[in-house]
Amino acid sequence: MMGLDLGYVLPKLMFLSKSEEISIDAITLFVGLLCTCIVVGHLLETNRWVNGSITALIIGLCTGVMILIATGGRSSHILIFNEELFFIYLLPPIIFNAGFQVKKKHFFHNFLTINLFGVVGTLISFVVISLGAAKLFEKLNIGFLETGDYLALGAIFSATDSVCTLQVLNQEETPLLYSLVFGEGVVNDATSVVLFNALQRFDLSRFTSDVTFKFLGSLLYLFSTSTFLGAVVGLLSAYIIKKLYFGRHSTDREVALMILMAYFSYMMAELLYLSGILTVFFCGIVMSHYTWHNVTEKSRVTTKHAFATMSFIAEIFIFLYVGIDALDIEKWRLVSKSPGTSIGVSAILFTLVVVGRAAFVFPLSFVANLTRSSPHERIGYKQQVIIWWAGLMRGAVSMALAYNQFTRSGYTKLRGNAILITSTISIVLFSTVVFGSITKALVRYLLPLQIYPSNFSAELLALKSMEEPLLTNGHGSGTFPNGHVVIHGRSLRMLLATPTNTVHHYWRLFDDAYMRPVFGGRGLAPRPSESPMETLS
Amino acid sequence: MMGLDLGYVLPKLMFLSKSEEISIDAITLFVGLLCTCIVVGHLLETNRWVNGSITALIIGLCTGVMILIATGGRSSHILIFNEELFFIYLLPPIIFNAGFQVKKKHFFHNFLTINLFGVVGTLISFVVISLGAAKLFEKLNIGFLETGDYLALGAIFSATDSVCTLQVLNQEETPLLYSLVFGEGVVNDATSVVLFNALQRFDLSRFTSDVTFKFLGSLLYLFSTSTFLGAVVGLLSAYIIKKLYFGRHSTDREVALMILMAYFSYMMAELLYLSGILTVFFCGIVMSHYTWHNVTEKSRVTTKHAFATMSFIAEIFIFLYVGIDALDIEKWRLVSKSPGTSIGVSAILFTLVVVGRAAFVFPLSFVANLTRSSPHERIGYKQQVIIWWAGLMRGAVSMALAYNQFTRSGYTKLRGNAILITSTISIVLFSTVVFGSITKALVRYLLPLQIYPSNFSAELLALKSMEEPLLTNGHGSGTFPNGHVVIHGRSLRMLLATPTNTVHHYWRLFDDAYMRPVFGGRGLAPRPSESPMETLS
Repeated sequence: MMGLDLGYVLPKLMFLSKSEEISIDAITLFVGLLCTCIVVGHLLETNRWVNGSITALIIGLCTGVMILIATGGRSSHILIFNEELFFIYLLPPIIFNAGFQVKKKHFFHNFLTINLFGVVGTLISFVVISLGAAKLFEKLNIGFLETGDYLALGAIFSATDSVCTLQVLNQEETPLLYSLVFGEGVVNDATSVVLFNALQRFDLSRFTSDVTFKFLGSLLYLFSTSTFLGAVVGLLSAYIIKKLYFGRHSTDREVALMILMAYFSYMMAELLYLSGILTVFFCGIVMSHYTWHNVTEKSRVTTKHAFATMSFIAEIFIFLYVGIDALDIEKWRLVSKSPGTSIGVSAILFTLVVVGRAAFVFPLSFVANLTRSSPHERIGYKQQVIIWWAGLMRGAVSMALAYNQFTRSGYTKLRGNAILITSTISIVLFSTVVFGSITKALVRYLLPLQIYPSNFSAELLALKSMEEPLLTNGHGSGTFPNGHVVIHGRSLRMLLATPTNTVHHYWRLFDDAYMRPVFGGRGLAPRPSESPMETLS
Repeated sequence: MMGLDLGYVLPKLMFLSKSEEISIDAITLFVGLLCTCIVVGHLLETNRWVNGSITALIIGLCTGVMILIATGGRSSHILIFNEELFFIYLLPPIIFNAGFQVKKKHFFHNFLTINLFGVVGTLISFVVISLGAAKLFEKLNIGFLETGDYLALGAIFSATDSVCTLQVLNQEETPLLYSLVFGEGVVNDATSVVLFNALQRFDLSRFTSDVTFKFLGSLLYLFSTSTFLGAVVGLLSAYIIKKLYFGRHSTDREVALMILMAYFSYMMAELLYLSGILTVFFCGIVMSHYTWHNVTEKSRVTTKHAFATMSFIAEIFIFLYVGIDALDIEKWRLVSKSPGTSIGVSAILFTLVVVGRAAFVFPLSFVANLTRSSPHERIGYKQQVIIWWAGLMRGAVSMALAYNQFTRSGYTKLRGNAILITSTISIVLFSTVVFGSITKALVRYLLPLQIYPSNFSAELLALKSMEEPLLTNGHGSGTFPNGHVVIHGRSLRMLLATPTNTVHHYWRLFDDAYMRPVFGGRGLAPRPSESPMETLS
């Protein structure tokens, strides 16, 4: 309410108080950098060492250096690493898109193995890293760390980076590895949530069988409720779009409803303290199986590419963000007095990550192979190496967890905490750049058969021969007119021989008889493929 | 760094401090409400009174009431109206999509008239409302208001709501009215920015011709730079995508680059204190003319519908937000002691809005008609009434301006300010609901010919006959092989008869000879239509 000469506020310009003006700077810079990353990533597409994540990470690092120089060494990051931004806005589109475009056949075929890796594997890795850190850090003088900090370290470095996996493994070239490593990442998230809950609630010093059962109980509860919520929201979207026939008026409305309901499933899960990642992943699977077939052809093309684009932008954003944020000058200064300790901590932690992952990938692969009868279904030794290797990268999830545990809203004055933050940053940068760039070459070296993706590759042929009897059996026969399912003598033999295939077979019968009439889905005439990725690639 | 039993933070769950947990609540509620709005809006599609905005506004109001009841009358809104959210995230997609899908032919054909309404009209409305408020408020006891507040009121209520216009007028049914009213809204924004700048810089008490020239100069500067920036970013996107041939590797990259560069143009304009709305609008026009034709067919379908979907979600979001926010209980309480004054202020302001708009629509239409020679191009009396009526709605822009002028980060203790805020809310609600619902019916009543959109409607036929000579003349002839443009004797006659058409003709020649070879655009073979809306509707 000042006088005439001062009191006039510009509609937008003056809306920007000091802090908001900085945020316009930051947003403009970020959007410009995102464009640069896309163009550079495109130019380097054929390069076998560099992928989109590494490009973004390096561009982010360079930007951080330039800001550091421009501000005279005062500050390198324009934004403090913000977990809300990451978990509420960037992660959901990536995981949803992964569920939407995943090859469902591979995912469900390997369901047991994925859960074995995701649940048991994560716990093994957690124990190895926690115990190892507690044992090895005693010799380094890094300040006072409590038992809680060691357990937190175990959790921080057991968190697989699903986003990185999506970048280095190719679903078309290596579908089995992709579904195993990525599926593990999704289940890993749910396990972490349960793990942290358990650490909070139970007194782990008195580790009894009672605690174990409670722990397994809450794991089962979280798994089932998260999956159930995702499936329910996905089915609801299919039902609404089918019943109200949205395409009649507008394609945009269908697309908007799919995006919003997918996001709703994630937020609901977060609100109910479930695993949002697991929920939105299953929501994506259900939407691609039912909802996607109920919308118009234009909506199908749009959703397929719009979801992929959102996921693509979010991925680049995350790596750019991590890159810019890596030069957190205040923490590096706290650390710089004792470079030896800092390097020691990083080296120990990364070694523990490598050992912790080896400690479950190879034994659990052996266990998984016991349930797989035919030789082409087994996880070969070379594939085990790739699974172990591809899951070593640590990314934004670890960063977010470390910031949350060892800082108070991004700041810390404790040297020990600063060392752990800078070590996390070092490990994230090192593992993403070095391991990320070698993985592509490693896959090509170890599995030369899958270099050129084609319908005639060995793995696909094997899968084809496996499913064909199911397909011919599943359509037209197997259901009585009243919808009841009949078990053929042949099916019983199948159940004994190949349990997963048989479950799939009965699911198809159930799907045709009860689900599709209500929720839609592709027509009764079988199409050559069943996921958006395959139909419109 | 607490002990074992307390110190463990959940990765996401405990990230949510108190304030963040509320934001998860709010986001979940908002996303759920958005879904509800889409479904309800779809069910009411055929209703002639209700449109999407009104549905969202009413659902927002109901939610506000429920929150008010649930919290026992303490608070009705979950978020304070946030200008940053509105101007940085919600407005750009709406305006960009409008530019992307606008019928360029109509827009440029009416370019002069649009500028007349947008610049001169906005200034007339501003003067009428400011003077009127200063004159009439003296009699009401509403607390101390300075001259600056009256001028601010003039600006707040001269800000046309472009979003509302998009909802009530149909581009297919009434293309002339749509382009006039919507174009005016876009230019109106640029004028407001200049107006506020001028109010800040110049001492208006000594109003000399010098000030007027300076004012007009900065207006011209802002117009040209904003338009230029939008065009440059649009052309850059076309050039990059054409040169690097993005579609070779991925559709998603093309779509991401288009979205990000469009947003980049808006943020750059904001950063440089230009009119972001004008910039992103022209960026949309250029992208639909060049870039859109350089991408793959799948990217074309995806961008067309993805942009429309983003705009659609942002529109519903805004109206829902305004609806929820309307029950700002603290301000209503401050006002409730003097209901008479409050109603008086609202009535006076709304009358001034109505009078201020009439004061420029009818005189300026008369002026515009002087330059239009053929009778079917004239703005008829009935059309003038619709232009006047359709621009009476006030929306989120007015809300944002009022909050900025009369509150300090959403709060105020002054009764006078509270009255002005609640009056703004009342006017926004009243004009959107009442005028919004009557407009559709009014258009049908006044212009019964355009009820059923078809290619044979009178207006379209008139336009067709107008452009055909240009099309046949513009293609194949008119340019020498070396690219120089020749002026036919016939063209000179055209220039005298129909200046706008002739400008369009030479633009086409220039476009074909110089622009398209560099920036792409639809092929040399003429397609039946030129904007995304028309090709893929």
